[in-house]
Amino acid sequence: MFNFKVNDSISLELLQQHQSEEIFELIDHNREHLREWLLWVDKRKSADDMVPVIKYWLENLANNQGFDVAIRYNGILVGMIGVQFDWGNRAASIGYFISKDSEGKGIITISLKRLINELFDRYSINRIEIQCGANNLKSQGIPERLGFKKEGIKRAGQFLYDHYQDLIVYSLLKNEDAEKY
Amino acid sequence: MFNFKVNDSISLELLQQHQSEEIFELIDHNREHLREWLLWVDKRKSADDMVPVIKYWLENLANNQGFDVAIRYNGILVGMIGVQFDWGNRAASIGYFISKDSEGKGIITISLKRLINELFDRYSINRIEIQCGANNLKSQGIPERLGFKKEGIKRAGQFLYDHYQDLIVYSLLKNEDAEKY
Amino acid sequence: MFNFKVNDSISLELLQQHQSEEIFELIDHNREHLREWLLWVDKRKSADDMVPVIKYWLENLANNQGFDVAIRYNGILVGMIGVQFDWGNRAASIGYFISKDSEGKGIITISLKRLINELFDRYSINRIEIQCGANNLKSQGIPERLGFKKEGIKRAGQFLYDHYQDLIVYSLLKNEDAEKY
Amino acid sequence: MFNFKVNDSISLELLQQHQSEEIFELIDHNREHLREWLLWVDKRKSADDMVPVIKYWLENLANNQGFDVAIRYNGILVGMIGVQFDWGNRAASIGYFISKDSEGKGIITISLKRLINELFDRYSINRIEIQCGANNLKSQGIPERLGFKKEGIKRAGQFLYDHYQDLIVYSLLKNEDAEKY
Amino acid sequence: MFNFKVNDSISLELLQQHQSEEIFELIDHNREHLREWLLWVDKRKSADDMVPVIKYWLENLANNQGFDVAIRYNGILVGMIGVQFDWGNRAASIGYFISKDSEGKGIITISLKRLINELFDRYSINRIEIQCGANNLKSQGIPERLGFKKEGIKRAGQFLYDHYQDLIVYSLLKNEDAEKY
Amino acid sequence: MFNFKVNDSISLELLQQHQSEEIFELIDHNREHLREWLLWVDKRKSADDMVPVIKYWLENLANNQGFDVAIRYNGILVGMIGVQFDWGNRAASIGYFISKDSEGKGIITISLKRLINELFDRYSINRIEIQCGANNLKSQGIPERLGFKKEGIKRAGQFLYDHYQDLIVYSLLKNEDAEKY
Repeated sequence: MFNFKVNDSISLELLQQHQSEEIFELIDHNREHLREWLLWVDKRKSADDMVPVIKYWLENLANNQGFDVAIRYNGILVGMIGVQFDWGNRAASIGYFISKDSEGKGIITISLKRLINELFDRYSINRIEIQCGANNLKSQGIPERLGFKKEGIKRAGQFLYDHYQDLIVYSLLKNEDAEKY
Repeated sequence: MFNFKVNDSISLELLQQHQSEEIFELIDHNREHLREWLLWVDKRKSADDMVPVIKYWLENLANNQGFDVAIRYNGILVGMIGVQFDWGNRAASIGYFISKDSEGKGIITISLKRLINELFDRYSINRIEIQCGANNLKSQGIPERLGFKKEGIKRAGQFLYDHYQDLIVYSLLKNEDAEKY
Repeated sequence: MFNFKVNDSISLELLQQHQSEEIFELIDHNREHLREWLLWVDKRKSADDMVPVIKYWLENLANNQGFDVAIRYNGILVGMIGVQFDWGNRAASIGYFISKDSEGKGIITISLKRLINELFDRYSINRIEIQCGANNLKSQGIPERLGFKKEGIKRAGQFLYDHYQDLIVYSLLKNEDAEKY
Repeated sequence: MFNFKVNDSISLELLQQHQSEEIFELIDHNREHLREWLLWVDKRKSADDMVPVIKYWLENLANNQGFDVAIRYNGILVGMIGVQFDWGNRAASIGYFISKDSEGKGIITISLKRLINELFDRYSINRIEIQCGANNLKSQGIPERLGFKKEGIKRAGQFLYDHYQDLIVYSLLKNEDAEKY
Repeated sequence: MFNFKVNDSISLELLQQHQSEEIFELIDHNREHLREWLLWVDKRKSADDMVPVIKYWLENLANNQGFDVAIRYNGILVGMIGVQFDWGNRAASIGYFISKDSEGKGIITISLKRLINELFDRYSINRIEIQCGANNLKSQGIPERLGFKKEGIKRAGQFLYDHYQDLIVYSLLKNEDAEKY
Repeated sequence: MFNFKVNDSISLELLQQHQSEEIFELIDHNREHLREWLLWVDKRKSADDMVPVIKYWLENLANNQGFDVAIRYNGILVGMIGVQFDWGNRAASIGYFISKDSEGKGIITISLKRLINELFDRYSINRIEIQCGANNLKSQGIPERLGFKKEGIKRAGQFLYDHYQDLIVYSLLKNEDAEKY
């Protein structure tokens, strides 16, 4: 019901309990695709498993620690974006995923562009960080298109099932964003 | 940031901590007007006093017990709407207030019309209740315009500072709404 | 162990954990009778299921939100009475049930009479509310005999398994009680 | 409201929030008398200070860890009795105090006699312990009159303001009680 | 990782989660031996059952209520010591067990000697209590060798599976310790 | 009382409540020195302010999220080391500070060397991260001497009173450590 409008076809939506089925289907249909990057997918086996997850996402918002939103594209859930705040340092980190079918349409990029503006302007955030798998070139393309600067490589930063993966760390500062847009 | 769009000029917005100043000003500027109907206004003396209130509103959402939204009209906060769920009986109750300056424009009525549709359609609510002060005719006009049925009088239902006030109880059922709109 | 004496044969008793068997038996033997009016009965299948319920009832008392007491009649548990407070409005609502075998003896009526006096005199309550199923004439007889005024009908106020039921709302105010007794 | 009747003049009463004034007065009027034995008295300076204490006593009951009751004698609060359970060992310990004015009437002794019967019979307690200050002969007289056996001396068992005090430990077992009464 | 060194062969170690297997094995290999004295042994059937126990022990430390340490002798876990504080009375009570294989080497006695010094000197404790099963002569030898004074017998102080056992209560006061060592 | 021995002169100690004075003095005497790098120093104005901090550090341990230890050098507290775990990725991050007087003696370096071995060997950690202020060359010397690899610069990673500071990110992986020592 509550969302942040990105443009006429995209909105970022806070999920509530009556949408547990809808978000579960998104995850279930992209299981193989997501599994490559995200550990927690395997644990979610039914819509009921989403109930505590949805609660957790909203508690995150209530505690002012961040928020997790679904991406709705032409009425259909196609991905998610998560934001975590580090208020002491006026910093935020962003994560995201999009369904296989909806890749390549710039949905994440345009959504983050709008979201980043909000974080800098209304939330008084100074630094935004994005970490991408070192071998996930598609994911890396997003911060690069948004003008993020590559800061370094977090070696063995993520453990996935049976191996470690390096992460590329990108950041964008408020004054850089002011120059860009 | 997260809102429910009512029409081009009205949206219902979930308030977050960075908006404590904005919501405090709405309450502070309508203190005399609100004081007549609402007990808790006197306890809120600064924007800081809103911090736990905003947290409480969002926890309400996280616990799936209801939600509290600000009404934004042409970019300005002009009132609030609160919804509480009674899931066991598939019922919801609604409360609201609007600033003195924004009365008489039908802002609450049109907002509730859209909100009620959501509650019946997406939240599977069967019964919606509104209680109005017996001497608050403006407030009573709202459920009456929305087709609510007057169910009875809750005698001495509200204690305000130094006296009791009767409340008129209105309700709308899902099947009635289906007929109307 | 702790109780409120109504008269020589009736007392209202705070249940403790060592009585889980006794209260379970009351519910179990009246299952069909209670099932008609009360949703939660089906979930209680053994004395162990009463352990968290008894804890919840006593926490209610500790938090000053209300209390739940068993009705003991000539030494035997025959029903229950629950009181919930709304301190902000100095109001209380009362619910009750009695076993099939003990109906028709005025046990609830006399118990409530004494309880209501306590609520008005010692707890400084101003308004007491009772809601009865619209088709439960026996239950309605109780507030009527106690001088409660019928305030209205809460349409589809209760969901029972597969259908909605209207509720009749009764109330008694402190000054009315003063006149009566 | 909820009490355990000892005899026609004495009852043991669970205190609730509307009685904070009454229990504070008992403590305040016996401050010097109590201060000799009880450390926590000095911290209670107004009826408001009793609010969290009353809540704590009732939570004790809700958690099935024990209970704290006021002694009402001919309508007036004259003392308190506290019981703590050690369920793993089916044991209970009892503490008490009585106002200066009400000493010497056997109020505690007769109250404990009835209470002990309840603990053995209904709560399935096997062992009851009472600890008394080594120089508090009046207090020691109570377990002695009740047939408790002196088990030993807990050296420096209590710290009072500026010195340690030995405690005499008394106990009564279930089978001993069966013989006695 | 964190421990209190007793001498070159003995240290008292705070257990952490990565040691759940090690502590489970100690308990499992001494099950029959421990079962005689300790009730909770039967409930621990795998290393996973130790996870909440280890957490509980460390929370005890965090809340400043006491601590529970494993005894490591020449690199191997051979027993445990638990300390509980009663800050209001500047008192502590101590419990312990040692594996069958490691009995008779004075490990507990020398460990407690050092621990007791710490409690009196750094924790400002005034009284230390040890309770031993009345028929457990080996256990009683420990406080006796440490100069504790026998204060009395706690009759039926412990319930073990199907019978009650008397406990001998020993204590040592700070000034006594000062004289001794 | 509980510590990790680094060598004959250095140990890493878990602080408890009776040491609040001692840790406060370390912070208070190094206020100007610490203030340059650490934001939270200004909030600690007395030993009492350390009580919740010490509790928080120990809860960290109890929840298996990390630990915070004081560095004791020849009997005197000279600094602190904090470790936070990210179990999902088998990673840990380390922070530290040392008093002005104790700089230049290699105390932190040798302490971390031993600590790192523990983390890799006993805690099954795969990656250890250290972040240093970009203009804090002394601090950077530590991971460099320990063979950590410089991964990148976290731009504006820390907010200090009135300005942002870049952080250098260093890491050491388990297999690298195996080669080194």
